[in-house]
Amino acid sequence: MSVRLNGSTVFTEHPVTVSAFSAIGGKKEGEGPYGDCFDYIDKDGFFGQKSFERAESAMQGLALQNALEKRGIEPSELPLLIGGDLLNQCVGTSFSAKDFGIPFLGIYGACSTMAEGLMIASLLVDGGGFDKAAAVTSSHFCTAERQYRFPLEYGGQRTPTSQWTATAAGALIVEKGDKPPFIRAVTVGKIEDMGIKDANNMGAAMAPAAYSTISNFMKDTGLMPRDFDYIVTGDLGNAGSRILCELFGRDGIDIEKNHADCGRMIFNQTAQDVHSGGSGCGCAASMLCGHFLREIRDGRLKDILFAATGALLSPTSSQQGMTIPGISHLVWISANHGEV
Amino acid sequence: MSVRLNGSTVFTEHPVTVSAFSAIGGKKEGEGPYGDCFDYIDKDGFFGQKSFERAESAMQGLALQNALEKRGIEPSELPLLIGGDLLNQCVGTSFSAKDFGIPFLGIYGACSTMAEGLMIASLLVDGGGFDKAAAVTSSHFCTAERQYRFPLEYGGQRTPTSQWTATAAGALIVEKGDKPPFIRAVTVGKIEDMGIKDANNMGAAMAPAAYSTISNFMKDTGLMPRDFDYIVTGDLGNAGSRILCELFGRDGIDIEKNHADCGRMIFNQTAQDVHSGGSGCGCAASMLCGHFLREIRDGRLKDILFAATGALLSPTSSQQGMTIPGISHLVWISANHGEV
Repeated sequence: MSVRLNGSTVFTEHPVTVSAFSAIGGKKEGEGPYGDCFDYIDKDGFFGQKSFERAESAMQGLALQNALEKRGIEPSELPLLIGGDLLNQCVGTSFSAKDFGIPFLGIYGACSTMAEGLMIASLLVDGGGFDKAAAVTSSHFCTAERQYRFPLEYGGQRTPTSQWTATAAGALIVEKGDKPPFIRAVTVGKIEDMGIKDANNMGAAMAPAAYSTISNFMKDTGLMPRDFDYIVTGDLGNAGSRILCELFGRDGIDIEKNHADCGRMIFNQTAQDVHSGGSGCGCAASMLCGHFLREIRDGRLKDILFAATGALLSPTSSQQGMTIPGISHLVWISANHGEV
Repeated sequence: MSVRLNGSTVFTEHPVTVSAFSAIGGKKEGEGPYGDCFDYIDKDGFFGQKSFERAESAMQGLALQNALEKRGIEPSELPLLIGGDLLNQCVGTSFSAKDFGIPFLGIYGACSTMAEGLMIASLLVDGGGFDKAAAVTSSHFCTAERQYRFPLEYGGQRTPTSQWTATAAGALIVEKGDKPPFIRAVTVGKIEDMGIKDANNMGAAMAPAAYSTISNFMKDTGLMPRDFDYIVTGDLGNAGSRILCELFGRDGIDIEKNHADCGRMIFNQTAQDVHSGGSGCGCAASMLCGHFLREIRDGRLKDILFAATGALLSPTSSQQGMTIPGISHLVWISANHGEV
């Protein structure tokens, strides 16, 4: 076997492709600059359900159902589903996944969940015994506000560094194949903690994790930012993106020219009043499954690094005065499989 | 490549072994029938920390540190750590894992977390590019009571079917090797939901999941309960174990003779007042890492099925009148690697 693991980066051995992908969004996401990229936009974010939590599960289920239909397979033909979300005990995903009857692995990576799921799915398809695997995740503005912040009716003021949890879901199916987009390598993130305690400034808490993981990938592979069309971070937002560029600047590396951040992309920042940008598992997932994967499949982009980021805090840890550990998982997605 | 995936069961291709394992517990667990199996018992469950949550993180860190020491490696020599716990946003694990600097994948499987972690670690070591991987999990009575039930000071009455969350942690390291215990196969669980809504009867909610996964394993492999020393379930407790045996009884299969349940093992049920038994991620993890793996390593047991079970509820889902989805992940652990 060739050297597959170098540092914290694992190269795929076989051509592993994302054979289907789907993005679902809420009303506000549909009104954003990438609104046309979603496969379905709900009229009010309730997705026909009676509670916000059920709405999130329904939205996530729609994303998976849509990906299965695009691939032309039944749930029973899928041997593995990997998923998670921001809700306590990941119930958004459990209540969605239980209706599909697919063998299920629950994951938690906060807003890095889609990168984590895509990474595990790719490695298990590459050599772990599964012929196919799906990854799914979601977030919902109303479930996140209720759980992490204040009742919606309270109308709390938002700080300039705060981010707006996207109401969105993404689903994708990974298998061996000969058509792009291909998964070339993955870098598993380490938890980074620079001592940030402000739960309204998650971008600052996550930026060092993105810096660490992207740096590790470059060290492990010898590749540089210029080798990629985009280095896509999850949802650092404006504040976190600025910190990330500064951290690379100290190393004499300019990533600003080809850095894209899903949190800065998903909403129109002047017209949609989202302060530092979007966030939530569904933000990076829907920008990946609605936009980037399509661009690579259709030949408009050649190589991206998808480095989704997660803030591993809880309301309890914040109330106890703890810091906010950050993590970022990276997946190299390419139009070519090529040799490693 | 030989047929590795059959149904929802994946067979390992190479000899994958658990090279080190460690179990840490609280005072009550130390007083239980398997108290001597723990590597360390804390005098009061605080593990020298100021909050219950920090205590849980410290306990989990001790388990991982101890496993690393037994294996004789530094954290920097470990390329992958997989872990999770019951706390909101899995902070027990995040705040423990961040001090080790090991590439980290967060998982959530409720009390099935150790089986899920062991399963992913085994598959990623078998063919996914990693030479080693650790899995870790924990639960703490006081963090679980605070989060899921009532403040400890309230002194709420417990129902006969309720279970006592174990204050315990388990950690293990998986790699390719020629010494037992070996991982022979894994069966990824599907979410099962028979409509149970009583959050104080999680055994009943999880039993159908254990039945489903163990049945799928038997169907996929052609093996029967008599082929194993023990079929070990996670923490069904008394109520759930009875249901599991009844479900198999309907199929004409008697599993009672070699069924063991970690929730029934960890505490002395007459003297320790735990009603239906123990529960929590740390319950099955510590019985696996403190007892069963040692028994197989030392030749006293030959083959077990470790089918940990998880109840995928949250306080919010229960308050909203939702059912309790259950899941069970199964790992076949053996003294022999043998041919598949």
